[in-house]
Amino acid sequence: MVTTTAKLLRRQGYHATGLNQIVAEAEAPKGSIYFHFPGGKEQLAAEAITASADYIDRALRTCERPTAREALDEYIAKTASLLERTKYADGCPIATVVLEASLTSDVLGKACADAVELLLSRVASWLEADGFSAAEARQRAQLVYAAIEGSMIFAKALRSTEPLTTLRGQLPQLLARDGAEISG
Amino acid sequence: MVTTTAKLLRRQGYHATGLNQIVAEAEAPKGSIYFHFPGGKEQLAAEAITASADYIDRALRTCERPTAREALDEYIAKTASLLERTKYADGCPIATVVLEASLTSDVLGKACADAVELLLSRVASWLEADGFSAAEARQRAQLVYAAIEGSMIFAKALRSTEPLTTLRGQLPQLLARDGAEISG
Repeated sequence: MVTTTAKLLRRQGYHATGLNQIVAEAEAPKGSIYFHFPGGKEQLAAEAITASADYIDRALRTCERPTAREALDEYIAKTASLLERTKYADGCPIATVVLEASLTSDVLGKACADAVELLLSRVASWLEADGFSAAEARQRAQLVYAAIEGSMIFAKALRSTEPLTTLRGQLPQLLARDGAEISG
Repeated sequence: MVTTTAKLLRRQGYHATGLNQIVAEAEAPKGSIYFHFPGGKEQLAAEAITASADYIDRALRTCERPTAREALDEYIAKTASLLERTKYADGCPIATVVLEASLTSDVLGKACADAVELLLSRVASWLEADGFSAAEARQRAQLVYAAIEGSMIFAKALRSTEPLTTLRGQLPQLLARDGAEISG
């Protein structure tokens, strides 16, 4: 049910996703929702956000390469392929829920904030391994990951992978170190 | 009704926004919706997206400064103030609708794509005035605007303006020209 919920959040967001649809698509008996998730849709969605963050974090780790630039290039290329393969139906479930529902529920808000922290930490760890200071790595991770989220939105809006291709070409500039920050 | 719809899209997205709520908040008689908007909620939402894009474009133009960097710095600072003032309730209505509903409706999808094009063109025009080639200006506009959208998502998720403050500090790097591209 968590997996089905995550898929539905990715495609249509929180408000459009109802318990009946989750039960039908997961082929689960309806009574089982409140048995496993006494907090109902809110709890199920929060767990789906946490599971999605873990899934994305694993996807990031499968892209690990000798440098952050190569890893991010691989990750963005995979994201573009996924969007194309799903005809732009899939998006980032975390971004979707942040925009429409994170403020209506503290449980969802906390799950979204933790999800963002997890993914930014992963990218920041790559940048630190490349020689950036911890503070600079965190700021660059925010910049690059924000650009990925925004480029996914544009790709969906324009139904084209071009914004993501453009972003890949801009990675060297986004990750360039000016003289003062080179540590190695 | 278009203004009310835009506000609701910004705060809760398309699926959570119902005609009853629009009519109630706009203090309009219910029958008037189908008189003015025969396409119902879908048409009203598409017009609200178009009106929001015009509104954001006007906000961008009030930030015009001698350079694109200064203009974007001003625009991001204003965005951060708005988020703080609304306790992170407001977001970008275009991004929200792109993520949850643009694929479920061609009318909405078209409105979202046109909205993205309008805003990218505005930022690209500033970059061209700064001396970037048309192609490079478009690519940089996409990068910077994607970073703004993503940073707004992080700001809402973390309930902090820090991602937007960080982005302001990174503008010089995002907009730096390498030797080959300097035209002036």
